[in-house]
Amino acid sequence: MASYDYDLFVIGGGSGGVRAARRASMLGKRVAIAEEYRYGGTCVIRGCVPKKLMVYASQFSEAFEDAAGFGWSVGPREFHWDKLIAAKDHEIDRLEKVYRANIEKAGAEILNDRATFEGPHEIRLENTGKIVTAETILIATGGRPNQHAALPGAEHCLTSNEVFHLTRQPRKLVILGGGYIAVEFANIFLGLGSDVTLVYRGQEILQGFDDDLRHELHQAMAKKGMSVRCKETFKEVRQKADGRFEVHLDSGEVLDADEALLAIGRQANTVNLGCEKAGVELDSRGAVVVDDYSRSNVPHIFAIGDVTHRVQLTPVAIHEAMCLVETVFKNNPTKPDYDTIPTAVFSQPEIGTVGLTEAKAAQTYDEIAVYLAKFKPMKNTLSGRDDRMMMKIIAETGTDKVVGVHILGPDAGELSQVLGIAVKAGLTKAQFDATMAVHPTAAEELVTMYEPSYIIRAGERIAA
Amino acid sequence: MASYDYDLFVIGGGSGGVRAARRASMLGKRVAIAEEYRYGGTCVIRGCVPKKLMVYASQFSEAFEDAAGFGWSVGPREFHWDKLIAAKDHEIDRLEKVYRANIEKAGAEILNDRATFEGPHEIRLENTGKIVTAETILIATGGRPNQHAALPGAEHCLTSNEVFHLTRQPRKLVILGGGYIAVEFANIFLGLGSDVTLVYRGQEILQGFDDDLRHELHQAMAKKGMSVRCKETFKEVRQKADGRFEVHLDSGEVLDADEALLAIGRQANTVNLGCEKAGVELDSRGAVVVDDYSRSNVPHIFAIGDVTHRVQLTPVAIHEAMCLVETVFKNNPTKPDYDTIPTAVFSQPEIGTVGLTEAKAAQTYDEIAVYLAKFKPMKNTLSGRDDRMMMKIIAETGTDKVVGVHILGPDAGELSQVLGIAVKAGLTKAQFDATMAVHPTAAEELVTMYEPSYIIRAGERIAA
Repeated sequence: MASYDYDLFVIGGGSGGVRAARRASMLGKRVAIAEEYRYGGTCVIRGCVPKKLMVYASQFSEAFEDAAGFGWSVGPREFHWDKLIAAKDHEIDRLEKVYRANIEKAGAEILNDRATFEGPHEIRLENTGKIVTAETILIATGGRPNQHAALPGAEHCLTSNEVFHLTRQPRKLVILGGGYIAVEFANIFLGLGSDVTLVYRGQEILQGFDDDLRHELHQAMAKKGMSVRCKETFKEVRQKADGRFEVHLDSGEVLDADEALLAIGRQANTVNLGCEKAGVELDSRGAVVVDDYSRSNVPHIFAIGDVTHRVQLTPVAIHEAMCLVETVFKNNPTKPDYDTIPTAVFSQPEIGTVGLTEAKAAQTYDEIAVYLAKFKPMKNTLSGRDDRMMMKIIAETGTDKVVGVHILGPDAGELSQVLGIAVKAGLTKAQFDATMAVHPTAAEELVTMYEPSYIIRAGERIAA
Repeated sequence: MASYDYDLFVIGGGSGGVRAARRASMLGKRVAIAEEYRYGGTCVIRGCVPKKLMVYASQFSEAFEDAAGFGWSVGPREFHWDKLIAAKDHEIDRLEKVYRANIEKAGAEILNDRATFEGPHEIRLENTGKIVTAETILIATGGRPNQHAALPGAEHCLTSNEVFHLTRQPRKLVILGGGYIAVEFANIFLGLGSDVTLVYRGQEILQGFDDDLRHELHQAMAKKGMSVRCKETFKEVRQKADGRFEVHLDSGEVLDADEALLAIGRQANTVNLGCEKAGVELDSRGAVVVDDYSRSNVPHIFAIGDVTHRVQLTPVAIHEAMCLVETVFKNNPTKPDYDTIPTAVFSQPEIGTVGLTEAKAAQTYDEIAVYLAKFKPMKNTLSGRDDRMMMKIIAETGTDKVVGVHILGPDAGELSQVLGIAVKAGLTKAQFDATMAVHPTAAEELVTMYEPSYIIRAGERIAA
């Protein structure tokens, strides 16, 4: 048997890679992990975490407005972009240190270098030029924003990578995209006082989510003053003499913008990774092809997280990492479980969702019962805010099993986490109903919708 | 068979009475409901609803402070008590109308009168002097704050009834009590800028809740500047020449106060109800004695809600009402289900809880595993706020069943509602763990605490 420098070499210091490195190290394996940029990966450095901090920042403008209805007078307030960015950067620095410390504590070797394949077991460290070997190699290089090479003037546009480091807040921002990243940034900048236009070529924002959620959120954003333009797209982005931009839409219309942001999907980070030198197969989009156990076509090379284009979520990458360590190092082959993944969109109002959309459930089952509530959250009675909350429960009528729950409104993300437990466990609508309400909460609606709003039988909507 | 004026006469227009009246009317029964004060009862008129509105109002002061860490500068702000009270009153008026409209829509007769027993089937309407008869009578008169007759100067004190109608915000407020009502008002007034002292004769606030929740909340309130004095009580309250008050503690200390609030429990509203004329038995505290089906000792007289001193919560009264209608009018004897009632305390930070406390679980089971997490919620990283969030999951090790979940922190009330579904359904810790995290949320902690913090076996705490 060949002798390698490491039992496991992890390429990429994001959530998945770090978890795998730590867990394997804690089992006594000799592990190295290499990261070319910053430990923490997309989630910590330029994704979930800084995004959520900006969401919090953007929510204060509504809080200041809402306070009046509750008896508060609030003096003039001003938002300082530079202060938020500095505070956010400080927190991200802290978190990166925590990530590094956790890897060190587990005993893995931290390499601040770009690692590429030199052969099936050989890794080149680009800065030092050193070549090391490993028995098992894990590709956890994540993804990057699609930069839309086909768009004339794409080089003038921001992606989510750059938006966290803008030196000035764009007064006028035009965003291309209708997925959750586009929607979240649109709401963040709107809340921070920017003039925001969201342009999306599809019929409706947030494809793949429940249609009622999509429509309700679209309407809510429009009511707050955002320009949401579906069935349109960018044709060209031109820089003007003053350094600002003209966004030309395919309709011929031209939008004026301080910045244009592309949020049109993400692609796997495999460019110049040298996969061909190791014989690792990539799919047409550049993602590493893996089996149910995250194994590539090369038996000792694995891949997890965004680089595999399975489900691009931090907790999924972490889950894949833990399954991988079971499979490779604990002789316990474990497939990641992708069934019933709850998820949130930190829009304003927020989305929390788990299980099947109504459309998907109607296709999947002969008959479903839909329980739908739309109401004004109690806080909005005094604030006068117009936002309504929506909750939808979908049950399969044969088994009474709840197969989907979709929420739009305050705390929807937090609620989706706990609903995830209930829906994944296969609980029935009767078990929801048997639960005593907690009053006054918004969530009590979830256990007091005793009668269905309508039934869908064989794809046809009928009265309940 | 005697002929009565009504099939059902409901005494009391609170949550329980109204639900029973509506449900029975919708079955075609001849129903009257009498309320001497305002429809909606404690919950709507002087309990849950106005309280929660005041909680919202009180939370803005922290929001204004927190904003700075996120880049906002906020000008001077001022709270106007009179505006809050007016807005709150306006909303309560609206809700009362909704309650009345719903009763009317269901077809029950609304009587704005005080109803008392004149005989087993006879009801006197005090204002009109009219006597009516009913086949079935429901006592749903609720409760009232204990006015502490034994306390010298109790007549100078407020209760939760009056506090909603104060014409001026007390600058200095001293509260007696350690239950959730005392704690909620203490936090409300602290958030609104009052100087608050909470005096409680017990060892620790919130008896009956999980001990860690109690201690953590106590500490959090103290850190915010509240004076929390356990193991002390009021000896006397004296009015001073200027109209303000001196609260004499049993320690001999004297506290200066604009108002003193008694929140030392509630008692059943049966005084002068004439129960003796109908032969209805009351217990030593004045509560109506009922069986498992809410039936009093007189077979055609029932009681639900706070007047029975079972569980004093709005959703429980409503549940009892619905069970009652099944039992009496649908020939389907149904016992209210009191097992695993989730509940919230709208303190700041908030409490959400379901199932057994650690102490109770340790008594009940041979062995339990306790999963405990204390962490800074993400928002508090930039705000610099010191509050930590606490989550505790208790599982019985033999079955792995989750028997209690206790949360202190933002959205704990909302979370407890959904956790209520999972815990009541008897889900296992493994089912919690099998759920994918939603990132970044606070609730993801609930599905990622893989290892117990400690085990309690035969009442002894041992390392995990």
